[in-house]
Amino acid sequence: MSEKLIGSCIFGQSGGPTAVINASAYGVIRAALDAEEITKVYGAFHGIRGVLDDKLFVMDEEDPEELKLLLHTPSSALGSCRYKIADPEVDDTDYKRILEIFKKYNVRYFFYNGGNDSMDTCNKISRYMESVGYECRVMGVPKTIDNDLFGTDHCPGFASAAKYIATSCMEINKDARVYDNGMITIVEIMGRHAGWLAASAALATAYGSGPDLIYLPETNFDMDKFLADVDRIYKKNGKVLVAVSEGIHYADGSFVSEAKTSATDGFGHAQLGGLAAMLAEIVKAHTGAKVRGIELSLLQRCAAHLASATDIREACEAGMEAVHQAVNGVSGKMVAFERETVDGKYHCKYVLLPLSSVANFEKKIPLEWINEEGNGLKPAFIDYVLPLIQGEPELPLVDSLPRYAKLKRVLAK
Amino acid sequence: MSEKLIGSCIFGQSGGPTAVINASAYGVIRAALDAEEITKVYGAFHGIRGVLDDKLFVMDEEDPEELKLLLHTPSSALGSCRYKIADPEVDDTDYKRILEIFKKYNVRYFFYNGGNDSMDTCNKISRYMESVGYECRVMGVPKTIDNDLFGTDHCPGFASAAKYIATSCMEINKDARVYDNGMITIVEIMGRHAGWLAASAALATAYGSGPDLIYLPETNFDMDKFLADVDRIYKKNGKVLVAVSEGIHYADGSFVSEAKTSATDGFGHAQLGGLAAMLAEIVKAHTGAKVRGIELSLLQRCAAHLASATDIREACEAGMEAVHQAVNGVSGKMVAFERETVDGKYHCKYVLLPLSSVANFEKKIPLEWINEEGNGLKPAFIDYVLPLIQGEPELPLVDSLPRYAKLKRVLAK
Repeated sequence: MSEKLIGSCIFGQSGGPTAVINASAYGVIRAALDAEEITKVYGAFHGIRGVLDDKLFVMDEEDPEELKLLLHTPSSALGSCRYKIADPEVDDTDYKRILEIFKKYNVRYFFYNGGNDSMDTCNKISRYMESVGYECRVMGVPKTIDNDLFGTDHCPGFASAAKYIATSCMEINKDARVYDNGMITIVEIMGRHAGWLAASAALATAYGSGPDLIYLPETNFDMDKFLADVDRIYKKNGKVLVAVSEGIHYADGSFVSEAKTSATDGFGHAQLGGLAAMLAEIVKAHTGAKVRGIELSLLQRCAAHLASATDIREACEAGMEAVHQAVNGVSGKMVAFERETVDGKYHCKYVLLPLSSVANFEKKIPLEWINEEGNGLKPAFIDYVLPLIQGEPELPLVDSLPRYAKLKRVLAK
Repeated sequence: MSEKLIGSCIFGQSGGPTAVINASAYGVIRAALDAEEITKVYGAFHGIRGVLDDKLFVMDEEDPEELKLLLHTPSSALGSCRYKIADPEVDDTDYKRILEIFKKYNVRYFFYNGGNDSMDTCNKISRYMESVGYECRVMGVPKTIDNDLFGTDHCPGFASAAKYIATSCMEINKDARVYDNGMITIVEIMGRHAGWLAASAALATAYGSGPDLIYLPETNFDMDKFLADVDRIYKKNGKVLVAVSEGIHYADGSFVSEAKTSATDGFGHAQLGGLAAMLAEIVKAHTGAKVRGIELSLLQRCAAHLASATDIREACEAGMEAVHQAVNGVSGKMVAFERETVDGKYHCKYVLLPLSSVANFEKKIPLEWINEEGNGLKPAFIDYVLPLIQGEPELPLVDSLPRYAKLKRVLAK
């Protein structure tokens, strides 16, 4: 146990929103408000930009009951950013400014919630503060629906998106098979470099109402093989449901979504819709069938109404853990998840990883979880994802519609 | 009370699926199984097509517990069709065949669940059976997410779709405003001729997290006015959320979604995505902002996980009412909903309408519920829709995923 460090803290949210990023916010803010070492709790407006712009909200001013509603409020309540901070060795302007703000508010704790890039930001700030001898404990809290953070069993936000995708695919599957004529439906799912989200559609199939085919960026996409797969099932069943990751790419690494021309169909006009619309056109030309493309779009990452209670709990606890560890002397770490089996049941253990080991690495689906054909998942993936989506949250509702947290957002002076 | 009519019944589902069409199926099937006048309950495979093809499932063979799960199973469990039956005066081939099947199974009751076209089918069958002197009681059960059936306060299926749209727009609104840069989001909602569904996005706005602008097919769309609306809000807030009905059209009646060229931006290339993608391109060209188009697609009509308990109950009771009325001697009618206020609260009363009065009319949103600018709804619309979306169903789940009805579908011989 190290010496007590007394001072205020800043918490920031970064990168793409999720259904549970505010659950982590609640975990950090609640634990920070409760920590005697932390004198004031600031929330940065739009992540690190709020620090640079001296736009900090005083979380101590918020109604505790409203803060609690953050557990069920999607997207980033404090605002997010995609600001990429420079290397301190190359340009330390931002760091000098951050130090200035830290000194102004006597900030001794900095908690940052985000994905790969945010952990990189965290790591750089941590190293800079150390290099100039300013004592500040910096902790990362993981977040990404993409589930691609290195060194952690899974990431907060992923499971809720996975549950939304699985449930929506089950519903789409019921809808897409209803008519007596042929129908091919292609669902586009987020995930530029890792296929965790699209793979989650396999849950729908495992529970009896899901896609026939799933394509992920972990393997190379082959348009001819894809069309042959679709054709075969269409001829057999008259209906095909396909799930594709937005990040599927050809063997040369080029994204299928970016191809303006395709040798298969001479498809060459400007692309308005995304990948689903484009594949729908190609499949239609190839099969002559009625084809519908569906993009789950933002819905999959902000669907708090269908969040996993497990995900909410873990997201919140990860935030709390970051605060508890920091006041106990830890710095330069990200809270990570380790999966354990306790009494035959899934259990999540919180561990700490050096920020430097997490930043800028991407975790992909193990190839041995993908079937030989490269168009579906093996049971090992279901075993992995199923425990994460468990539990229905008790959503606060008013007139059967979601009641989100209403924050006062009082700016610090 | 008329004479007892003993015989079997056929139930069919028709048109686009909804989240609660199977709740009506359950209502009809359960009441028919329980009615002593009805000797056997058949479910037509793909609606009237199943009758023509002699593909009828014996509902008596189904497990009652599985049948009950129909209350929470989206889409049409018996299969649907869009088969348009000829006028019996023009071509009575289909009717002769239907009569043949009715005689084969001693069908004395026919229940058909669908929208405008299905009520037309119902009406024609009813008139034909009467004209040939075959005693058969024909009843329509309303269904359509579009809510455009004439003579009924609302239609089963609409409220659940409305609730999904409102909740999803609340979530999208949170997500679409998260970054520190400008962002315009356009959500495309179903409804070709009536704007009830797109209008439901106004619920999200009324509850604090919804679209800034809503455009409906009830008024003429003016691209310049639309761009000016978006521009104004974008300049003020830096964020705009727009909801559009897929059926918005210019003053000359042509659908905006079908326009291959637009005077406003010279937009003239082939359209891959739908209306949202197209408007996103136009708005992007006009404002220079980052614009995202989102199509709610099938999701809005099959989202049983977010159904309105009120809608489920009414859908089920409408089915039961059709059976009870038929065994009591009624025929040639559709069960309709009349809104009452009992003890200051919303109450739905079941009434009967002649099938002929319902068929092929479309009910639109009263113009006095739309604001002067033609880009939003007045409180009267919220008052109309709010009672309909109330109540959360207790969804049967297995491992936190939906458990749908599994029917045996035993074919009648």
